[in-house]
Amino acid sequence: MAPIKHKVMINVDLGEGYGNFKCGPDDELIPLIDHANVACGFHAGDPLIMQQTVATCKAHNIAIGAHPGLPDIQGFGRREIKMSPEELTAMVRYQVGALKAFLDAEGLPLHHVKPHGVLYGMMYRDKDTCRAVYEGVPKGIPVFGLAGTLHEEVAKELGLPFVAELYGDVKYNADRTLVIDRKKKPWNPEDSKKHIRSQVERSAVTAVNGEEVELPIGDHEVSLCCHSDSPGCVEIVKAARAIVDEFNTKHFS
Amino acid sequence: MAPIKHKVMINVDLGEGYGNFKCGPDDELIPLIDHANVACGFHAGDPLIMQQTVATCKAHNIAIGAHPGLPDIQGFGRREIKMSPEELTAMVRYQVGALKAFLDAEGLPLHHVKPHGVLYGMMYRDKDTCRAVYEGVPKGIPVFGLAGTLHEEVAKELGLPFVAELYGDVKYNADRTLVIDRKKKPWNPEDSKKHIRSQVERSAVTAVNGEEVELPIGDHEVSLCCHSDSPGCVEIVKAARAIVDEFNTKHFS
Amino acid sequence: MAPIKHKVMINVDLGEGYGNFKCGPDDELIPLIDHANVACGFHAGDPLIMQQTVATCKAHNIAIGAHPGLPDIQGFGRREIKMSPEELTAMVRYQVGALKAFLDAEGLPLHHVKPHGVLYGMMYRDKDTCRAVYEGVPKGIPVFGLAGTLHEEVAKELGLPFVAELYGDVKYNADRTLVIDRKKKPWNPEDSKKHIRSQVERSAVTAVNGEEVELPIGDHEVSLCCHSDSPGCVEIVKAARAIVDEFNTKHFS
Amino acid sequence: MAPIKHKVMINVDLGEGYGNFKCGPDDELIPLIDHANVACGFHAGDPLIMQQTVATCKAHNIAIGAHPGLPDIQGFGRREIKMSPEELTAMVRYQVGALKAFLDAEGLPLHHVKPHGVLYGMMYRDKDTCRAVYEGVPKGIPVFGLAGTLHEEVAKELGLPFVAELYGDVKYNADRTLVIDRKKKPWNPEDSKKHIRSQVERSAVTAVNGEEVELPIGDHEVSLCCHSDSPGCVEIVKAARAIVDEFNTKHFS
Repeated sequence: MAPIKHKVMINVDLGEGYGNFKCGPDDELIPLIDHANVACGFHAGDPLIMQQTVATCKAHNIAIGAHPGLPDIQGFGRREIKMSPEELTAMVRYQVGALKAFLDAEGLPLHHVKPHGVLYGMMYRDKDTCRAVYEGVPKGIPVFGLAGTLHEEVAKELGLPFVAELYGDVKYNADRTLVIDRKKKPWNPEDSKKHIRSQVERSAVTAVNGEEVELPIGDHEVSLCCHSDSPGCVEIVKAARAIVDEFNTKHFS
Repeated sequence: MAPIKHKVMINVDLGEGYGNFKCGPDDELIPLIDHANVACGFHAGDPLIMQQTVATCKAHNIAIGAHPGLPDIQGFGRREIKMSPEELTAMVRYQVGALKAFLDAEGLPLHHVKPHGVLYGMMYRDKDTCRAVYEGVPKGIPVFGLAGTLHEEVAKELGLPFVAELYGDVKYNADRTLVIDRKKKPWNPEDSKKHIRSQVERSAVTAVNGEEVELPIGDHEVSLCCHSDSPGCVEIVKAARAIVDEFNTKHFS
Repeated sequence: MAPIKHKVMINVDLGEGYGNFKCGPDDELIPLIDHANVACGFHAGDPLIMQQTVATCKAHNIAIGAHPGLPDIQGFGRREIKMSPEELTAMVRYQVGALKAFLDAEGLPLHHVKPHGVLYGMMYRDKDTCRAVYEGVPKGIPVFGLAGTLHEEVAKELGLPFVAELYGDVKYNADRTLVIDRKKKPWNPEDSKKHIRSQVERSAVTAVNGEEVELPIGDHEVSLCCHSDSPGCVEIVKAARAIVDEFNTKHFS
Repeated sequence: MAPIKHKVMINVDLGEGYGNFKCGPDDELIPLIDHANVACGFHAGDPLIMQQTVATCKAHNIAIGAHPGLPDIQGFGRREIKMSPEELTAMVRYQVGALKAFLDAEGLPLHHVKPHGVLYGMMYRDKDTCRAVYEGVPKGIPVFGLAGTLHEEVAKELGLPFVAELYGDVKYNADRTLVIDRKKKPWNPEDSKKHIRSQVERSAVTAVNGEEVELPIGDHEVSLCCHSDSPGCVEIVKAARAIVDEFNTKHFS
């Protein structure tokens, strides 16, 4: 398999609490990562949490992206909702703009947009959905997505820069799509290390049916995604950091 | 009373439907006005309605402002909610940013910010609330408010340009504050004309207790507010347009 | 076609406003109908509207049923949401219980349960969905549904009394399912009369592809549904009332 | 001080998660308590969580009451909202009915109603609010409240049975009202034991200003409240259980 041509970065979904409800250990994760995907209030997050998450990311020099989701806090953006293309575009534009306000107030740029949860999956299964979502992304802002799927194809059509994602704590189907659960299940630490290592070092992964699947990363920049609501997420991200740093040092220094 | 020193403009709250629910006759009102206050999804409006309202205003060359409200669609932003200053600032920033995304997509500037409903009233009754809301307004963007109240005082402290509002369809208390109902009541057309005329031509108004009250407009720019959810709003706005045009022609042409 | 064996009744979805937002002309419709389906706060309605709608129905001696919908006021319960069977059952139980509280306070019985909008359609397309929804209905309470579909089949399996619906303002597909739009479209009055008359008098209807379709009403009780958010709904319901009364007088007096 | 005339019971607010968001360690607390106050979906809880909480309480033979709150999940029912008396009554009726549906499905009675959070405080500060809330409680169902306040007075006026509450993890003001925070603060275990012991054994408590305050429990039944979102809540409830059991054994066996 063709090796990855860029340093591998790490991204985590952050700010996914709501009011008094906490989601992940954001403060422990932020120092370990490169890219933050900040929830925008539709599947999680609220204005105050967004403001605080942006401030914490700024203090650690983390690049901040928007993490828009379906309008469903109760379902955490993991229940499919059939919306029209116009609604999808408007909903993404709204959420990205809301996050941008907090970045503007801090003098920070918007680094990327990464759709959340089942919306991300709906986009690689349906081209109209993918196009509608990406049309809500401001011109020139990179999108994070799955290489070799409609994510990449539509980003190219619309002229949006594309960053290929790897997944530290999500399993793959044999067709390279992801297995998305309503609630994240715990990982055996050794399994997660092996899962990360094969993606980073060989652009390949073992799918849930046991098949070895190549990931068509090509020339894209790469960011490996972990989730703040995975049980044991701090350990997973620490392991990912070590594997990624080793890879980056070996190939890019 | 000191005469108004600028052309009087007309503003209306727009885009205050929600999903299938319609609020006012926006399409009939937009051609009659100068400034639109577009609801931002918290007290009314949703992303699709915002997108469509911005497009319609653009087609009629109306200057567009953000109309942030309390997070309460059921109460239409007219039930007081006690929020912390940090929450208020973050909530305003969020809503203004969301609207700005639709303006950015259309290549339009944000013209002003005008808080909605009971939030507007809470701001002239409590300085901390007023300051917290205005801290969510981007630097340099004018705010619309009531002259001679905390609205004006705090805008000055924070260096925000201030536009004084008159009210076409809202009654005043003798202390120059407004009488805000959960649902707007109908006006007798002649009463509303008299109400508008006295404000525009004499910077004065008859309060609900019968007292004649002077409005301390000073040197400020002026915009007269009407509501799209007032019964008979098209007639009220047409009457306002005629009175305002007559005044503007007489004094500024 | 076998003639209908019972008096035909008329039902309408009511209480579908939200806060300040009005939906249909409920007060004009209530005196014209037999059965009310009262929205329960998830797709429309709020506690105060429910309370008022129950009081108005009581004053007119209308039998009151619960009208539970998907949790989506913005989409008016007309956007499909993928929920687990357990969620569906719990959601229906919750909404029916909420309505029952208002009936209890007025000393009225719960007459029936009729699922709203796209949920109704999801139920005749998927047996698990249908069963999950009906499991949230209290034992012994009749459900309103489409004869000859999973609605009838699952009601029978679970031992729930079944009332067959006809549709005054909704078109049929050739497979006897309904054409459900996000917003109701206007009807030509003559077309709607013809549409109602063929269902009531001949248990048959012309589908959208022009085909004549028989409706397998069998021995079931029958209620003809009209919608309060259809343009021209008062005229449609008046026409339905006249046609139904003529039929009932001819066959059952 | 007059000793308490009944066995002291323990109640906890339960089912206060929302979707994927967890609140307290309900499964650890339920075996330790007598009365559950189950959140009804407005300040926390959702239909599925309610259904599961009722099932768990049933398995442990816990008496179940409704715990209605203000419609504000983001604020966890701890931000004051100004609602009309009619809205308050309807909102309480709605929530209690929703919970009752889950009890009905399990063949369980509704044991009591206890308003949540800031609503509880608004009720002892304002008689109209208190009356409006209690008018939403079904006839004959006991309400839990603060003895010697409007809670007790209005319950008496409306003929509702009254149970006096003590507080295991909430501090008192010198006027016997409670100090309600948006987020619960941690307790020193010895302080909380002392706090509980003085209430249970002497019907008295040390207020936040250091003053010793007598609690006018009179002849009422008594239930001591703890919160599932207090840091260290399992330890607090265990301590409360031990103190209460000792008291009950000494005086009532």
